[in-house]
Amino acid sequence: MPIPNDAAGREAYELDRAHVFHSWSAQKALEPMVIAGGEGSYLWDADGKRYLDFSSQLVYTNVGHQHPKVVKAIQEQAATLATIAPAHANDKRSKAAKLITDLAPEGMNKVFFTNGGAESIENAIRMARLHTGRTKVMSQYRSYHGSTATAIQVTGDPRRFPNEFVPAGTVHFFGPFLYRSVFNATTEQEECDRALEHLEQMITFEGPGTIASIVLETVPGTSGIMPPPPGYLAGVRELCDRFGIVMICDEVMAGFGRTGAWFAIDHYGITPDLITFAKGVNSGYVPMGGVIIRDEIAATFDERAFPGGLTYSGHPLAAAAAVATIEAMHEEQVVENAARLGAEVFGPALREMAQRHPSVGDVRGLGVFWALDLVKDRETKEPLAPYGGAAPAVTGVLGAAKEAGLLLFNQFHRIHLCPPCNLSDEEAREGLAILDEALSVADAAYEGVREVVAA
Amino acid sequence: MPIPNDAAGREAYELDRAHVFHSWSAQKALEPMVIAGGEGSYLWDADGKRYLDFSSQLVYTNVGHQHPKVVKAIQEQAATLATIAPAHANDKRSKAAKLITDLAPEGMNKVFFTNGGAESIENAIRMARLHTGRTKVMSQYRSYHGSTATAIQVTGDPRRFPNEFVPAGTVHFFGPFLYRSVFNATTEQEECDRALEHLEQMITFEGPGTIASIVLETVPGTSGIMPPPPGYLAGVRELCDRFGIVMICDEVMAGFGRTGAWFAIDHYGITPDLITFAKGVNSGYVPMGGVIIRDEIAATFDERAFPGGLTYSGHPLAAAAAVATIEAMHEEQVVENAARLGAEVFGPALREMAQRHPSVGDVRGLGVFWALDLVKDRETKEPLAPYGGAAPAVTGVLGAAKEAGLLLFNQFHRIHLCPPCNLSDEEAREGLAILDEALSVADAAYEGVREVVAA
Repeated sequence: MPIPNDAAGREAYELDRAHVFHSWSAQKALEPMVIAGGEGSYLWDADGKRYLDFSSQLVYTNVGHQHPKVVKAIQEQAATLATIAPAHANDKRSKAAKLITDLAPEGMNKVFFTNGGAESIENAIRMARLHTGRTKVMSQYRSYHGSTATAIQVTGDPRRFPNEFVPAGTVHFFGPFLYRSVFNATTEQEECDRALEHLEQMITFEGPGTIASIVLETVPGTSGIMPPPPGYLAGVRELCDRFGIVMICDEVMAGFGRTGAWFAIDHYGITPDLITFAKGVNSGYVPMGGVIIRDEIAATFDERAFPGGLTYSGHPLAAAAAVATIEAMHEEQVVENAARLGAEVFGPALREMAQRHPSVGDVRGLGVFWALDLVKDRETKEPLAPYGGAAPAVTGVLGAAKEAGLLLFNQFHRIHLCPPCNLSDEEAREGLAILDEALSVADAAYEGVREVVAA
Repeated sequence: MPIPNDAAGREAYELDRAHVFHSWSAQKALEPMVIAGGEGSYLWDADGKRYLDFSSQLVYTNVGHQHPKVVKAIQEQAATLATIAPAHANDKRSKAAKLITDLAPEGMNKVFFTNGGAESIENAIRMARLHTGRTKVMSQYRSYHGSTATAIQVTGDPRRFPNEFVPAGTVHFFGPFLYRSVFNATTEQEECDRALEHLEQMITFEGPGTIASIVLETVPGTSGIMPPPPGYLAGVRELCDRFGIVMICDEVMAGFGRTGAWFAIDHYGITPDLITFAKGVNSGYVPMGGVIIRDEIAATFDERAFPGGLTYSGHPLAAAAAVATIEAMHEEQVVENAARLGAEVFGPALREMAQRHPSVGDVRGLGVFWALDLVKDRETKEPLAPYGGAAPAVTGVLGAAKEAGLLLFNQFHRIHLCPPCNLSDEEAREGLAILDEALSVADAAYEGVREVVAA
């Protein structure tokens, strides 16, 4: 029952149902859980039930809930200067920009701040279009970039479909994804080569001189956590260089420690032209996103006005939270912890689990960014829920885990494990044990074995 | 000199210039003022120089700077639960939604929260398109609605021009504006009637069945603070009803006390289908915007998923700031104060000033929302700066005021006075005295008198 017994919790629930219109949902049947507090990797609801948070909400509380240094920084900035217009300068905004550009590859020295990921993509694409004088934007199927008009149309998941009101100048291509290869590849190297060949063909047939930008998630997140094979991103970089195309790496979900590196591009040694970020930059304690800009693109707007802006660009409260988050992540080696957890705990444990759970068709990920691809049959790889849809076998896993005190992230037939980057080993093992148990619900819907037996 | 003497201030300035990419600007020549703190209607820079803030930054700090109740609410919420995903429920989000819908007309009971004004417009238009099954959106010339892809294209100011990369399904019409009537009207009634006739003609020729929405700022803000004549908005409402068009009133700038009412629509007694808000809802202390939704539109998404969302929708820190802001505005009668200041102080003083300053062609406004239309000649009404441009006579007024400790808001040839809604009478008089002095710069560029003398 989602309705809390606690009186204050019940009031929060009832006012929510009466007055709050929720994202991405049919409103009538919603039964939101009332969250009353959190600490570290845990949350609790209005009745005090505790949950280990392997969702990091929408994959953003990278330093966990209520990190004391970030909370303190917000409180202090609130007492000093909560807000100031973007035209002025402010110490925390300056410091945040410095810390963020210090993390980026050489030659990326400026930050345009926004309120979140979607606006970062909107502004990155604006910059690319004005820098190149071209309009068309290419992006990947199996991607999510946000819900404003341009961001949702470069998105490559079903949320785009009801939002194609007008043309947006976008074209989609396939990225590398060996488990469900559209290129009939059998090795990572083959998948990489064929995906690059496909992209080059797409560029040729779309017209290189018409393409302002290629936008991609460095590691696609919501669409399945698919770390690209070595060489893919360098290949995209080379194509962009050859054809004068602006390369935008979307690190909104993958950035700030999620993959066990500050930015996911660090695993691949490439320098994009623009990096979009949000979420982990301040663990979402205050809304903030932004675009890190390569010097050549920034120079386009040295003498010519950049025609975009936001009232809260570089908001001091958000910037103070970013400064404290990044400093805490440095001090506490949070990124290193995420890398270690991925290599030593999550990777081995999930692969072992997959051997025991037939419904787990594939395990993918790195750092604290893992996907389980749940299937009806390992041979056919038929997903346990349809593209864009849900199925009881998957919602059953989520429900069983939640009942046992573990929050997971889900899209369609996939379960994602995205805990805070500063999760402890003990918490990792606690969550993995609950997941192990819950996967029996998915296994019950597995059809492959029966078919094998019947054959 | 913008570069502070203070060492910390100088560092903030230098890091800003090296790493912060600013809104709406050519970056090279920027010399941002380093703001170190604020209190009530005042700010101070890094060297301690104090400014009376008649800009409310970008017209959003409606309860002034560092309001103690709002600061305290942010600090307490930060200590309790800084953030939570939009799918869950939370006491502060619920409370904010309740307080906001309580302020809206009857039959508007749900709120979709965003991070700012642009995203509110994006989502309002998405709702209108899905509710009607139509695509086209009509909006006014002389308007600003935000900088994301759809928001900037419904905008009716020059910031739209460099952003028309692809068609957005938008059409612009003229609103009523007697001082610069495009309808050759000579009275408010005539302007009102002709503007409505013009809109009806536009609807007819665009095809009523193609039009999802008419979007307008209830009182256009950045484009000139033009309170519509009595009857205009009721006329638009009637046209929307007749043709099944969703009426969106953009109250991002005009809402939450700015006009001396909670919403500017309160002056006109109409109920739109959607109200967009941001800025004043929590004085911008934490980024927040939203859409207030009429029951009929909300019901469209009872069973059908609303295909839009944001990671930080209903952010608890922003919601806590909204709750504290609205409660403080109730307790301290902030809206009533804004109304009184407009009727008893700003209106009379500015009209008197206009009699003494030939460059002031028109005075418009209400509450704490006033525009001075500066002209070269009162007969021809030629603006003192060109549309989309700047002129020394106008920047000179701003500079002289700033030198004397007053921050103003400006667009093109206009000076806007938008102080906090809780400004005191003494502060109002202090600012008006500085303005009075500064206007001599504009008067020096006035050409009308000389022409009259020469004739």
